[in-house]
Amino acid sequence: MSDGLLLLAAGDEVAVATRALTAGEVIPLPTGEPLTVRSSVPRGHKVAVVARSAGEPVRKYGATIGRATAAIGVGEHVHVHNLEITEADQPHEFGTDRHTLTPPPGDRPTFLGYPRADGRVGTRNYIGILTSVNCSASTARMIVDQFRGQVLDAYPNVDGVVALTHRSGCGLVTESEGARVLMRTLRGYAAHPNIAGLLVLGLGCEMLQSSRIVDSADIPSSTLIEQLVIQDEGGIRRTVRAGVEAVNRMLEPINALQREPCDVSKLVLGLNCGGSDGYSGITANPALGVASDRLVSYGGTSILAETPEVHGAEGLLTRRAVSEAVGRKLLDRLDWWRDYTAAGGGTMDNNPSPGNKAGGLTTILEKSLGAVAKGGHADLAEVVEYAERPRVPGLIFMDTPGYDPVSVTGIVAGGANVVCFTTGRGSVFGCKPVPSIKLGTSTELYERMPEDIDINCGTIVDGTDTLEEVGDTVFEQILAVASGRQTVSEELDLGQEEFVPWQLGAVT
Amino acid sequence: MSDGLLLLAAGDEVAVATRALTAGEVIPLPTGEPLTVRSSVPRGHKVAVVARSAGEPVRKYGATIGRATAAIGVGEHVHVHNLEITEADQPHEFGTDRHTLTPPPGDRPTFLGYPRADGRVGTRNYIGILTSVNCSASTARMIVDQFRGQVLDAYPNVDGVVALTHRSGCGLVTESEGARVLMRTLRGYAAHPNIAGLLVLGLGCEMLQSSRIVDSADIPSSTLIEQLVIQDEGGIRRTVRAGVEAVNRMLEPINALQREPCDVSKLVLGLNCGGSDGYSGITANPALGVASDRLVSYGGTSILAETPEVHGAEGLLTRRAVSEAVGRKLLDRLDWWRDYTAAGGGTMDNNPSPGNKAGGLTTILEKSLGAVAKGGHADLAEVVEYAERPRVPGLIFMDTPGYDPVSVTGIVAGGANVVCFTTGRGSVFGCKPVPSIKLGTSTELYERMPEDIDINCGTIVDGTDTLEEVGDTVFEQILAVASGRQTVSEELDLGQEEFVPWQLGAVT
Ligand SMILES: [Ca+2]
Ligand SMILES: [Ca+2]
Ligand SMILES: [Ca+2]
Ligand SMILES: [Ca+2]
Ligand SMILES: [Ca+2]
Repeated sequence: MSDGLLLLAAGDEVAVATRALTAGEVIPLPTGEPLTVRSSVPRGHKVAVVARSAGEPVRKYGATIGRATAAIGVGEHVHVHNLEITEADQPHEFGTDRHTLTPPPGDRPTFLGYPRADGRVGTRNYIGILTSVNCSASTARMIVDQFRGQVLDAYPNVDGVVALTHRSGCGLVTESEGARVLMRTLRGYAAHPNIAGLLVLGLGCEMLQSSRIVDSADIPSSTLIEQLVIQDEGGIRRTVRAGVEAVNRMLEPINALQREPCDVSKLVLGLNCGGSDGYSGITANPALGVASDRLVSYGGTSILAETPEVHGAEGLLTRRAVSEAVGRKLLDRLDWWRDYTAAGGGTMDNNPSPGNKAGGLTTILEKSLGAVAKGGHADLAEVVEYAERPRVPGLIFMDTPGYDPVSVTGIVAGGANVVCFTTGRGSVFGCKPVPSIKLGTSTELYERMPEDIDINCGTIVDGTDTLEEVGDTVFEQILAVASGRQTVSEELDLGQEEFVPWQLGAVT
Repeated sequence: MSDGLLLLAAGDEVAVATRALTAGEVIPLPTGEPLTVRSSVPRGHKVAVVARSAGEPVRKYGATIGRATAAIGVGEHVHVHNLEITEADQPHEFGTDRHTLTPPPGDRPTFLGYPRADGRVGTRNYIGILTSVNCSASTARMIVDQFRGQVLDAYPNVDGVVALTHRSGCGLVTESEGARVLMRTLRGYAAHPNIAGLLVLGLGCEMLQSSRIVDSADIPSSTLIEQLVIQDEGGIRRTVRAGVEAVNRMLEPINALQREPCDVSKLVLGLNCGGSDGYSGITANPALGVASDRLVSYGGTSILAETPEVHGAEGLLTRRAVSEAVGRKLLDRLDWWRDYTAAGGGTMDNNPSPGNKAGGLTTILEKSLGAVAKGGHADLAEVVEYAERPRVPGLIFMDTPGYDPVSVTGIVAGGANVVCFTTGRGSVFGCKPVPSIKLGTSTELYERMPEDIDINCGTIVDGTDTLEEVGDTVFEQILAVASGRQTVSEELDLGQEEFVPWQLGAVT
């Protein structure tokens, strides 16, 4: 819809003002019919494009965001004065809103990846130095430092050496939930298809022994594996020397690997947002949703996450669940979260803040919808826990915090081989060993931080591109990046600091 | 005591076997009298040097570790078969076991430090890049990378540029205990006397805004301060450029600072242990206790920590408290810990493990005594919370986890300008911007990891040095290191990864 109004899905009763509108303005609807604006409407707020009687549901981006509390005429401002959610809008229904996604006509897309022995596909060839405990973190970084700069130029098929260090591994309660979540995360990285070579580095006296990580992870037989323990080697200098030798031994065989055409269904896309703004829910997130749906239609996998941002609107997802069991698992995780945040002295309030309301968000359903839009309209195929590997393809929900590095670390541990990250305020996120494509929500952001954003989704509100067009661009970029194209975060060599396993439980 | 037995304090009823002893051996006591060993005694276990009747208390290192459950003759093995603790050994008494420490005769020692405007003294001149949130961590490290290698050779009085990055700063419950503890830690580093120059680096949209850190920290007016926000600068590359310029501006004025003789009382010594072994409690820890007592006798400050290792034997410290209020504060913190570990699915069990018992530790009092020995015999002057700055000199207890990087981060935030770290298994700990002196518990460790240990305290059990002699060596080394001598961890450039604020509460 051009100049002033954006309709997010066919059939929606409201459109979004992409600029401040004044009463009396006439704007053409997609049908060609003219719409006369009836009141002044701030940018980002909603305008009725279909009349509603009191009590009737109102849809935005194809989903109910609430009910009219009074009659609403075409062209009127729709906000807290005439829209509200009722119990009826939040039923716990399972599978009542499923959509079969059919792939677009034409050839199935492929990408150039590195097939691994377990059938999964790497999009990068990294050598990962995984630490069992913080005590070996410095040593891991010293080894990595030897492979910075031009040292790897002779190995074009080696994307880098990354230190996957974390701050825990000791001072944990044995067999606690926190210890299990950390172990699952480390195993997920050890077995990740983008880790072509793995060096596990321990101190020696830590609780979480490095041999346990290797022995219990389901690592593809194609991964080269080495282990070093500082106390056994006789200190840091000797361990650094041995570690550099171990990495050197891996370089030639990994460089000999060649990218091969792989079916698009081998992509596992991680979805996330950070530093959201008023445009996130109407530009970058739904554009990413279009790309996610495209991938799912081809039999690929897409992982939505960030549980706190779904809270209060979980019905949006349970109605798309492929089974009651899948829907109930989401509800169970939300119960867990209520206890978790209460123990931390907080609450799970996800209602629109005063700032959200000023920006045009009226209800919790509408707010969550903006976040969930990253996952498009696909059925919810499975709900997994943090860092768990999905068992089926399709749209997956992983239970993670909203905090970016922690959320994406879980998603990558679960096997994502490409990540798309939407940002309004300007995140500078990367997540080695996986490429992270950053989608900016506005042209203003894209112009302010040009070196940190891959795709400007602001053209949707600028009126120069449709949601579908930007969604296409995102999908094409996913294929290109999976095939080796560098993202801005890779050009900046970001992503080592962003490995942050979810720390749960007591530090003793 | 030579060849086979080590008496930890005059008046103790037990000595420690420094090698396996066989029944019938005769070993001279310090009095010159011969002691005949009455049963075979494994290395590290206890031998009675004074006879005890059933019910009489037994002391080791000057403190009661339990009561005889049967008559014990001189030369007999003392362990679980004839030693136990009773309620009477663990009273909550306050101040009933105080000792006035008098400085040794002779001149008061001094060290060469950098006096700061608030009266505290730096032992190093670091430029610290402190991040408000994980999102600015990569950028902080990119700036630090520009000052590695020989770049700083022209600035001999600048010890380095350190990135103080952490994994939190967003996804926290506002005003929660976790947010307050993190803020207190960041403020403690911002205001630390070893931070001559401070660059605070934020992303922009984080919960914990960088300006709040600077505005609320009690930073000495002598500290050079700069602030940068990535979203304001327009991305990572521009921020790195601006950050490098900011650091460059600081180099000349900081290099112009000169070390000056400072009174020994300006030292704030942090005490810690990691990777303990059977020798920790009889060599490195008590030797460090001798040095700590020496410092306290001169009016200096020494910070003991690691609450879980004191648990069950808190009476050892409350009896040394300068007031009931100080003693009760320790008991209050232990109550807090019982809740904290229970919520994390654990318990506060600090009883000797089967491995501890095999090594010769009989009771929880004896085990805790080995840890508390780092703090010598000084009165307990104050109990502070994690990362809190002590208000008085003397021996301070800070409530921290036992986990090394988290514990020492709290101690450094509290203002420690030298750290002594004891290790039996072989820790490779460093803690920029503060030097960390590593004390090894055995000659075997010292020979196995020669490049990672500063002082071998194993000579105490080897019989070549007394506890007092090694304590002297430690004290002299503290003065030398405070005056600029490099520790092994500084030679290895360790200590950036070990900045790990205690993460409490939910990640959302
Ligand atoms: Ca390369
Ligand atoms: Ca996020
Ligand atoms: Ca220098
Ligand atoms: Ca410790
Ligand atoms: Ca000697």
